[in-house]
Amino acid sequence: MVILMADYAGFCFGVERAIDIAEKTAVESDSVVTLGPIIHNPQVVENLERKGVHVIKDVSGVQADNTVVVRSHGITKETYAQLQNRNVSTVDATCPFVTKVQRAAEQLSNEGNTVVVVGEADHAEVIGIVSFIPGEYFIVSTPEEAEQLPKRPRIGLVAQTTQQGETFRSVQKILATKTDTLTVVNTICNATTHRQQAARDIAGRADVMIVIGGKNSANTKQLFDICAELCGRSYHIETKEELSPSMFQGANTVGITAGASTPKYLMQEVREYIQEVSEQ
Amino acid sequence: MVILMADYAGFCFGVERAIDIAEKTAVESDSVVTLGPIIHNPQVVENLERKGVHVIKDVSGVQADNTVVVRSHGITKETYAQLQNRNVSTVDATCPFVTKVQRAAEQLSNEGNTVVVVGEADHAEVIGIVSFIPGEYFIVSTPEEAEQLPKRPRIGLVAQTTQQGETFRSVQKILATKTDTLTVVNTICNATTHRQQAARDIAGRADVMIVIGGKNSANTKQLFDICAELCGRSYHIETKEELSPSMFQGANTVGITAGASTPKYLMQEVREYIQEVSEQ
Repeated sequence: MVILMADYAGFCFGVERAIDIAEKTAVESDSVVTLGPIIHNPQVVENLERKGVHVIKDVSGVQADNTVVVRSHGITKETYAQLQNRNVSTVDATCPFVTKVQRAAEQLSNEGNTVVVVGEADHAEVIGIVSFIPGEYFIVSTPEEAEQLPKRPRIGLVAQTTQQGETFRSVQKILATKTDTLTVVNTICNATTHRQQAARDIAGRADVMIVIGGKNSANTKQLFDICAELCGRSYHIETKEELSPSMFQGANTVGITAGASTPKYLMQEVREYIQEVSEQ
Repeated sequence: MVILMADYAGFCFGVERAIDIAEKTAVESDSVVTLGPIIHNPQVVENLERKGVHVIKDVSGVQADNTVVVRSHGITKETYAQLQNRNVSTVDATCPFVTKVQRAAEQLSNEGNTVVVVGEADHAEVIGIVSFIPGEYFIVSTPEEAEQLPKRPRIGLVAQTTQQGETFRSVQKILATKTDTLTVVNTICNATTHRQQAARDIAGRADVMIVIGGKNSANTKQLFDICAELCGRSYHIETKEELSPSMFQGANTVGITAGASTPKYLMQEVREYIQEVSEQ
């Protein structure tokens, strides 16, 4: 039997990477901490807690012997400076796509642009991004808010990684009327689109397709619908307990994918189950 | 004027990120070193040298006060251990896509798979990947080499990030005949495909398209051909010196992209030139 693991399955790239880094750091160092929970998923945070990764509220709670893992959505320039001043060992698990927005925003500002960030002003990622902008900036979450912005000689446009492309393009059109020179760096990370494309690619070649994720998860349901269209024997499960050997009878190729809030170990458990069925 | 910067332009994600990290580390620490050149591009290495990032040959040359930046294609598990034993400050700029291959290979081995890596055995990335595999593994670079492999109860398949999808799929088909249970994790990073898609997306909306890259660079030429098909006023340049204001006359939207070996600062210089033209 051939088992095809979908790319971009489960947690988005940045979150999966941050969890990997936290786990690896906990093996190498004692007293590893994150500033706030690494992800808004209680099972994952508890699991990391058991492995020695503790959540603290902010920099003021950092002890001298702590190793601080920076979360995937990043921190502010000031927090980096505070950690450095306190000479604390730091491991940066900021999503590389978020780092890219921070750098682009800083660079556009250094080039004399007023920077406009499409995103949620109170989201940690956006708070981090704007901390890197030395000059003037605005945060807008809707085209209506963009309409309210003043005119400026030069505007540079970036986005929080999880924004919708449509909102970004609408804001872009409005800003073109607010300046003579608009520079656009599209920093949206299309994790959902990538996940669906990868599932489609695998479902088209699989005899059986397993889609892992909460039964009430909208993105998992959508992923299942995409797979079911291409592979008649598609199953939507939450854990490996829902699997049975008969589901794989006569199958040569089995595909596995997972929704955005599915931890990697659930995918691995399913993979190991199918490897064992394959050998029976 | 609206200036659209293409995603995935210039250096691939991992290389650009590694250079960014090296530059940032050089601002924060004295005596920053890389084990070998960070990238095989003399201008970039010289530029980093001026900013305080020095190239040393291997771990034996690391001094106690050095900060080591790990290159984008990664290092071996043993080198990580050596750095840790010597208690040297280390900043990991391994491409996140390479880290993903290392983790997948290690995990597949832990699940009892013989691991097959599609890649070049003497490439630093592959040497790094296989160092994370605790059990049996093989490296193959062609389907012919895969034909020579022995049968095994369980095989796990991964690839060096820069391999061709076609080779990977051919090897996959052959390995399916060598085992009862083949688990496939496609770890190829389609930087070239992504770069071309992003250029296509922007060229379709631009009045003028600027493609930056060596005149003898095959991938830049291909990028230019894609742009020229969608945007009649496309120009292939090496540096901003080839630009003139007349190229942008009457243009509302200008797109910028770059080939795989174009440093980011060249793109920024072109962007700044066009911003200035826009204001005249």
